[in-house]
Amino acid sequence: MKSMDPLPMLAIALPARGSRTLARSLHGQLLAAIRSGRLAPGLRLPATRALAGHLGISRNSVIAAYESLAAEGHVMARTGSGHYVADTPARAPARATPVPARARERRLNAAHRGLAAPDDMVDPPRAPFDFRLGVPDTAALPFDAWRRLSARALRSMARGVPGYVGPAGQPALRAAIAAHASLTRAVACTADDVLVTAGAQQAFDLLARVLVTPGKTVVAVEDPGYPPTRAAFAAAGAVIVPVPVDDDGLRVDLLPRDAHIVCVTPSHQFPLGCVLSAARRRALLAFARRRQAVVVEDDYDGEFRFEPRPLDALQTLDDDAAVSYVGTFSKSLFPALRLGYVIAPPWARAALMLARQRADWHGNLHAQDTLAAFIAEGHLARHVRRMRGVYGERRRVLLAGIARDLGRWLAPVPGCAGLHVGTRTIVDLDLARVVERARAAGVNVDRIGRYALGGDVADGLLFGYGAIEAAAIPRALATLKRALAQA
Amino acid sequence: MKSMDPLPMLAIALPARGSRTLARSLHGQLLAAIRSGRLAPGLRLPATRALAGHLGISRNSVIAAYESLAAEGHVMARTGSGHYVADTPARAPARATPVPARARERRLNAAHRGLAAPDDMVDPPRAPFDFRLGVPDTAALPFDAWRRLSARALRSMARGVPGYVGPAGQPALRAAIAAHASLTRAVACTADDVLVTAGAQQAFDLLARVLVTPGKTVVAVEDPGYPPTRAAFAAAGAVIVPVPVDDDGLRVDLLPRDAHIVCVTPSHQFPLGCVLSAARRRALLAFARRRQAVVVEDDYDGEFRFEPRPLDALQTLDDDAAVSYVGTFSKSLFPALRLGYVIAPPWARAALMLARQRADWHGNLHAQDTLAAFIAEGHLARHVRRMRGVYGERRRVLLAGIARDLGRWLAPVPGCAGLHVGTRTIVDLDLARVVERARAAGVNVDRIGRYALGGDVADGLLFGYGAIEAAAIPRALATLKRALAQA
Repeated sequence: MKSMDPLPMLAIALPARGSRTLARSLHGQLLAAIRSGRLAPGLRLPATRALAGHLGISRNSVIAAYESLAAEGHVMARTGSGHYVADTPARAPARATPVPARARERRLNAAHRGLAAPDDMVDPPRAPFDFRLGVPDTAALPFDAWRRLSARALRSMARGVPGYVGPAGQPALRAAIAAHASLTRAVACTADDVLVTAGAQQAFDLLARVLVTPGKTVVAVEDPGYPPTRAAFAAAGAVIVPVPVDDDGLRVDLLPRDAHIVCVTPSHQFPLGCVLSAARRRALLAFARRRQAVVVEDDYDGEFRFEPRPLDALQTLDDDAAVSYVGTFSKSLFPALRLGYVIAPPWARAALMLARQRADWHGNLHAQDTLAAFIAEGHLARHVRRMRGVYGERRRVLLAGIARDLGRWLAPVPGCAGLHVGTRTIVDLDLARVVERARAAGVNVDRIGRYALGGDVADGLLFGYGAIEAAAIPRALATLKRALAQA
Repeated sequence: MKSMDPLPMLAIALPARGSRTLARSLHGQLLAAIRSGRLAPGLRLPATRALAGHLGISRNSVIAAYESLAAEGHVMARTGSGHYVADTPARAPARATPVPARARERRLNAAHRGLAAPDDMVDPPRAPFDFRLGVPDTAALPFDAWRRLSARALRSMARGVPGYVGPAGQPALRAAIAAHASLTRAVACTADDVLVTAGAQQAFDLLARVLVTPGKTVVAVEDPGYPPTRAAFAAAGAVIVPVPVDDDGLRVDLLPRDAHIVCVTPSHQFPLGCVLSAARRRALLAFARRRQAVVVEDDYDGEFRFEPRPLDALQTLDDDAAVSYVGTFSKSLFPALRLGYVIAPPWARAALMLARQRADWHGNLHAQDTLAAFIAEGHLARHVRRMRGVYGERRRVLLAGIARDLGRWLAPVPGCAGLHVGTRTIVDLDLARVVERARAAGVNVDRIGRYALGGDVADGLLFGYGAIEAAAIPRALATLKRALAQA
């Protein structure tokens, strides 16, 4: 532990001693490694002393080799910080040789050929007035508490570093989630029912793995709906059937008779924002019982409710073990945490655990331990309560502003929860152009049409209020009004 | 933010005011929630003040409701810490009602029916003398540095909480991994080639998703071999074909002509411990070129090499973009971190990124940022170097002890890397019984037979040295000698 330099572990074979030969051999091998791209441009080479010690040769041999490389321009010496691989234009990395890319790509299965990296993988840059969907406001996160609990979890882990554990999640976190889901969403569960996942997306993925028979299983999804959910089921080979949505949520009466899985967002339909009515809830559960179907309830932002009337989870009404309830901390805390959960019926649990183990064994334990303590100490509940006030205020300002400024063009979809409001056009409009014009004027707003699956979906604008302060909403709407007036 | 109690967010609908009616209605709804299991035994109820504030009723109404529940035994009051749901035997939770479990289980696809939660999900308890496989020694981990960098990463994150990011991993971590893999394993790569995964297991899973066509794709795996790798490919619908292994690694000459994917552990075959010979490496790459096949190189503990002769990764020799190199930090640091990576050819990258996004979007960013800084500051390299010394000493003691004490029964498989030594029996032995007898005497040792896929695999004992100190090895082997002598 004497050197602060990176470890010299480059695989190098040297001839019997003799400093000239050694230096020449070392030089040749490093050069080959640089030319082939094994040692990439910008990489710091091991310190001469460390490399000499590692190879069991004199430091002078290493210095001689480095100096030759530097003289040839393959390596740059920076005073006080060592030697770096140069970015020589002469270098022809192995990766750059022309390859018959098409032929190679045929090694992929049909579903994965010819893809470019999708463009919606990273959040787009913030706009001055930003109604983007699906992001919470993190300014008021109690990061001091998080930091303290994170450090505590790490100290505890250092005292007894865990090996591989079970895939269901840390017991303390499962218990904390069960209490949280019981209290905030009236979900019927105990810790044993909770499977911790890497965000809601992994819950959909695991459910798809254990429920879908490729090419056979029919999965009903909301249209318009949340694309990543259906992508997970489609990737598992499901037959996706879009089902219309109206102001009372999913049109349960239009479910295909052979639907084996129904994916639904009952508390706050994505993207419309409406609530699945009580009658539809009963009808959906009756359908599930009759057809032995499975309901996947995506409750992505149901913690944020703005009306006193109760809005229990669909799972609460289920007495037939048909509903798998999916929750996430991406909206109540922050997405980069990548923690969510599925509360599944007992018959699905062993299968889901096995699927999780095959997928990634189990999640990062430090994050799980931190979150468990954060919930147990009441920070999550307090943060949700505080943010309910913040979001409720934004929602009021937004709805009033829409009525005042945009009522000629748009009517809000009724709803009472979540982090965005949906509206529908009441006159003929090219909303794609409106969105473009608004963006040019500094307002980022989304539209329903982007989430349609090809059905006859009425378009409308979508107003997320996770990324915009109440005070900024009136000006944003005034700008949007001008964009609409030009349409 | 006045109360330290959990947030009262239980969904409750109350009649118009009137404290008697209110208390009775609240009592009834809480009781129903307790009876149905929505409020689980042991759950702390919201503080009376908080619940009263939330519901907009008097605190006396809440106290009255709680007192009725306590009098009936549904709730227990603990002095100074509030009210808890009691574990009353009378309670009949919804989950406990008899259900036609078989009928419900038919909702799962055929591959996931009738499973019990597998018993190998959690590491078994430590034995006094423990030769278990696959776990590193974490006693010397530089946890102080990890803690410092973890806190720094969190402070930086608090200044600008990230939203959803790309699935490939944090840029700084990808760059750090590229440098690490170049230096330690001579892997040809730049940061762009690196896809960060949730451990090596997720890398196998993502490769299976993008490469396998269900029911068609033939995947050759080593026999004996690592079960979780083949489980990932089998779950994707691959046709698994076991291929024998000898002292020079995978019998490349016995690969099925239609193998589209070859899974191999070239630096340290799991579980035998041997090295894929140079001739076999060339033959394998020639096979891949001829058959347009893909090689999945699992380099799970190749950082730990104990001979001066170079042992480059197979990927280093690949000039046909056939090899996907999979690495992990589970052995060089610790498994609970759940971070690994795949260095894949360019033609596979967009597909893998899309598959990762569908699987879980991206990993926990805090852990990635911490690891990136840990590598960049040289802590990983120093830790690997130090542990190479520690493991090398254990390996020497172990090999000498096996030769001295167990040479009558066992011959070591030649190898030069990794965290375990494989041996083969040279006389007829019932090793399952030997393992059992050894465990009863306090020695945990594994055997090759457990990793056989049904082929004619010679059995032998496997000695991991991640969980046993050098000083304990002689006594462990002496105990084992007695167990063998009784066989």
